[in-house]
This record gives sequence, structure tokens and C-alpha cells, in this order.
Amino acid sequence: MTKPAGIEALRWDDGGLIPAIVQQHDSGEVLMVAWMNRDSLARTLESKETWFWSRSRQELWHKGATSGNTQRVTEVRFDCDTDTLLVLVDAAGPACHTGERTCFFRVLGRDAVEPL
Amino acid sequence: MTKPAGIEALRWDDGGLIPAIVQQHDSGEVLMVAWMNRDSLARTLESKETWFWSRSRQELWHKGATSGNTQRVTEVRFDCDTDTLLVLVDAAGPACHTGERTCFFRVLGRDAVEPL
Repeated sequence: MTKPAGIEALRWDDGGLIPAIVQQHDSGEVLMVAWMNRDSLARTLESKETWFWSRSRQELWHKGATSGNTQRVTEVRFDCDTDTLLVLVDAAGPACHTGERTCFFRVLGRDAVEPL
Repeated sequence: MTKPAGIEALRWDDGGLIPAIVQQHDSGEVLMVAWMNRDSLARTLESKETWFWSRSRQELWHKGATSGNTQRVTEVRFDCDTDTLLVLVDAAGPACHTGERTCFFRVLGRDAVEPL
């Protein structure tokens, strides 16, 4: 897996991770936030589909591999501090494990705050 | 400073912080990512303007207090894991310290990856 130039210059945290915000490229909807390591970012750039690092399972995770809800990547942006990614995608289906299109479907002060 | 019900149920990290994605409410533009502690979230909900916790300066930070580029909050959402906030705002001006409207103004593979 080749690592595109520039990846090393991102500000990876002590665990070799960087947070990635995933946004639907046309509607602007923020779908989810997940973590990437160098390998998952390289695979994302190469395959044009999102790959993440699961901190709980400690393994690479190809979004949609089992559900079919892959995310086709149109652009990857990074912020002024180079410590956060913004991944623009076309999502084939729900981003959230609850079946909701976005993980941010609840409003503070309106919906209960319990993990699902 | 009263803390609206529900705040305690969010999944604050060991340092008492939660990441907050700030998004322009109408255009959908992702403007920045910053950290909130309980106090900054309470102030944000009460004042309807964004307050963050600066990890580098270890102090509360009212966005736009000096620059005038405040962010009027229209809604605060939280994700399925209750560990990330999505703050919808109307931004009076640039969110980024570089003067760019959004901190995510650079594209991986196109723009150089050095911190500004």
C-alpha cells in the first residue's frame, strides 16, 4: 500500500490516529466522525472509499464492507492545524449503525442523551 | 451558570472535554473543530454564541470576543455515541485564524500539508 506524499506531514496523535469528519459532498450533511491511521487513509485515497481504524476492535474497518453502505470519496480536506480531516463522500446508505442516515440525528435539549 | 439537563449524560473524555464540529447552518460548510468542557457548553447554550476550551491556553474562549467573528448558535446536535457535538451556527465572519472562512480550506494531494 503506497502512502501518498503529504500523509506523513499530517499531525498524527500519539496513537498514530487522526479524526475524520465525514460529510455528504452535495447536501453538506455531516454523517459521522471516525478515526483513521496512516494505513486507513492510504487505503481511502487509493480505493476512493472510506476506511477507518476501529479503536474498540483495534482493526482496519472498510465502511460498508458488510452493510453495503460504502462511502465514495470525492475529496479529502484538512484543517489549518493539520490535525483533523474532512472527508467528502457520496454515501450509498445510512452512515449510522442505528440505521439513521447521519450519526448526528439527535438535538441537545430535545432528545434524550443516552448512548444507543 | 446553570447547566441544562442532559449535559452530564454526554460522554466527556478523561480531561472533561468533548470535540465540537462547527457547521454553518444554511450552507452546510464545516467551519472548524474545537473542544468544549462543561462550562463552555453551558455558556454556549445560554448565550447562543460559541464558547470553547482552549487546550493550549487552558482557558475558556469566547469565539469572536476579540475578532468580532462570533458564531450565533442555531442548534446543537450530538452523535449516536454521545461523544461528539455538531454545533450549527450563523458565523459573522471567518472561522479560521488565517482569515479563511473555514479551517478546512486545503485539499489533501493538492495543497501543502504544513501547519499555518
